[in-house]
Amino acid sequence: MSSIVVVGTVALDSVKTPSGQSREALGGSAVYFSLAARLFVPVHLVGVVGQDFPEEHKHSLRTRGVNLEGLDVLPGKTFRWAGAYGKGLGAAKTLETQLNVFEVFRPKLKPAHKAAPVVFLANAYPELQWEVLSQMTEPSIIACDTMNYWINSKRPALKELLSRVDIFLINEAEARKLAREADTCRAARKLAEWGPSVVVVKKGEHGALLVADGRLYAFPAYPLVDVIDPTGAGDTFAGGFLGYLASSGNLKEALEPARLKRAVLYGSILASFNVQDFSTRRLEKLNPDDLRHRYRDFVDLLTVEDGILAA
Amino acid sequence: MSSIVVVGTVALDSVKTPSGQSREALGGSAVYFSLAARLFVPVHLVGVVGQDFPEEHKHSLRTRGVNLEGLDVLPGKTFRWAGAYGKGLGAAKTLETQLNVFEVFRPKLKPAHKAAPVVFLANAYPELQWEVLSQMTEPSIIACDTMNYWINSKRPALKELLSRVDIFLINEAEARKLAREADTCRAARKLAEWGPSVVVVKKGEHGALLVADGRLYAFPAYPLVDVIDPTGAGDTFAGGFLGYLASSGNLKEALEPARLKRAVLYGSILASFNVQDFSTRRLEKLNPDDLRHRYRDFVDLLTVEDGILAA
Repeated sequence: MSSIVVVGTVALDSVKTPSGQSREALGGSAVYFSLAARLFVPVHLVGVVGQDFPEEHKHSLRTRGVNLEGLDVLPGKTFRWAGAYGKGLGAAKTLETQLNVFEVFRPKLKPAHKAAPVVFLANAYPELQWEVLSQMTEPSIIACDTMNYWINSKRPALKELLSRVDIFLINEAEARKLAREADTCRAARKLAEWGPSVVVVKKGEHGALLVADGRLYAFPAYPLVDVIDPTGAGDTFAGGFLGYLASSGNLKEALEPARLKRAVLYGSILASFNVQDFSTRRLEKLNPDDLRHRYRDFVDLLTVEDGILAA
Repeated sequence: MSSIVVVGTVALDSVKTPSGQSREALGGSAVYFSLAARLFVPVHLVGVVGQDFPEEHKHSLRTRGVNLEGLDVLPGKTFRWAGAYGKGLGAAKTLETQLNVFEVFRPKLKPAHKAAPVVFLANAYPELQWEVLSQMTEPSIIACDTMNYWINSKRPALKELLSRVDIFLINEAEARKLAREADTCRAARKLAEWGPSVVVVKKGEHGALLVADGRLYAFPAYPLVDVIDPTGAGDTFAGGFLGYLASSGNLKEALEPARLKRAVLYGSILASFNVQDFSTRRLEKLNPDDLRHRYRDFVDLLTVEDGILAA
């Protein structure tokens, strides 16, 4: 079993949705990712918080097997994000972003992190993602995500980064923007031509597209009627997806389509749990049995017995 | 093998998409439905055209096994629709609708139609759908569709109709509007509580939701990179879906989940062919081998071997 290093934000989020709100709750891309991936493999979180970061959050992560040796504590305040969702829970409206200590964060990997076989570069500025990558010894699987802001301001650096990446996870609107294609399937295929051997386009409630070996696969999301807060769903998906792949005995096999398809289902399942409560509450309570149960149900929903028309 | 009666529009469509345009080409809900369903069972089309309707279109439908005894020809012009799609091929912008002879259409079913075991009431004003239904002797499966216009102006009549219907097919935006739910899964479940034992929410490029026996199923669309013209995709889906169900030896079994799931895949497959060319061109050329081939491919894309986490 491999381990994963994830580099991204550790945040205090304030979120309003039609179901209620959370204030300064645990969040951030590296946190959501870690809480999902830790159900499959040991996870090392590399990130930064300010001196105001509650000890209980660290405790909560550590108890769940997330290694925090790579979590720097710098003078100042922790990264904060505030957002609101309307009816239908589509894209969040960002009310406030305070970079705080994240702005001066320059990760310096510890030896154990450098040697990790799998690394996930969560959404951050491409130069920071690159800086982390250049410190890794020889990772077998490099995966990354990005977001609108960098697509607009750092497109060349992002394309350069993608040429080094094995797995690129990105949300639908961002995939279309980055590829400059109005059609999502075309966008996914184009992004795969830029370097990554695997592209996953996350479509939220509409599921995900996967490009592997040049072939296009489509999956629905696990159907839910009780979505409370979509914050972190994308990073949680990435954690389930990559966590499952990293748990493969042989990482060379991890990128085979049969395994990648199962990884998409695990990503969807983890995201489906995450959106059923505010912040990381549901993920923190999650155990392997919950996971297995919903995975079985999802496979059952999708299974179609042969129904080929008689000749 | 059963036969299907479909009641809906027969139209001359003028459509512009980023790939080009068609002018006064064959279209209409009953036409798209028939050209899909005829690959599974005999189809009787009930509708109306004006004296300007080209003989070649009738010939084309008849050659493909669509029975036109129920197609009235009235003095005046055929129903016309003109629309345009932008980049990304989302919802069409309607440029013009001329009801013409459809406005005075009062279908009077022939004895053979009245006795049909399966009937599809394509989008029309609910009173017309009701009028057709009341002429049927004892159909085993009653299915219908609707659209925004009737949801706004005829909501009570529509709810009344749904209490009589077995299968309700509706597109995503319309499902949310009719159910007054911002979430599509919730909307689908609510509509199923109004009477239909089966609800299918068509989500275009994002696939479809199915509610059967109170359980919610989600499916992706067949992934395509060469979409030319989405016109008629929803009715084509309905034709594939209902055509497959009607081809069941025993219609009592037709509404079992295993069969309904395969029907959704056939609906998606038929729709995926339809959008690959303007008007009904691709559907007219389609043969059972094309269908079988793409169905196998779709099942293959979706198939996930067991990947349950070890306990």
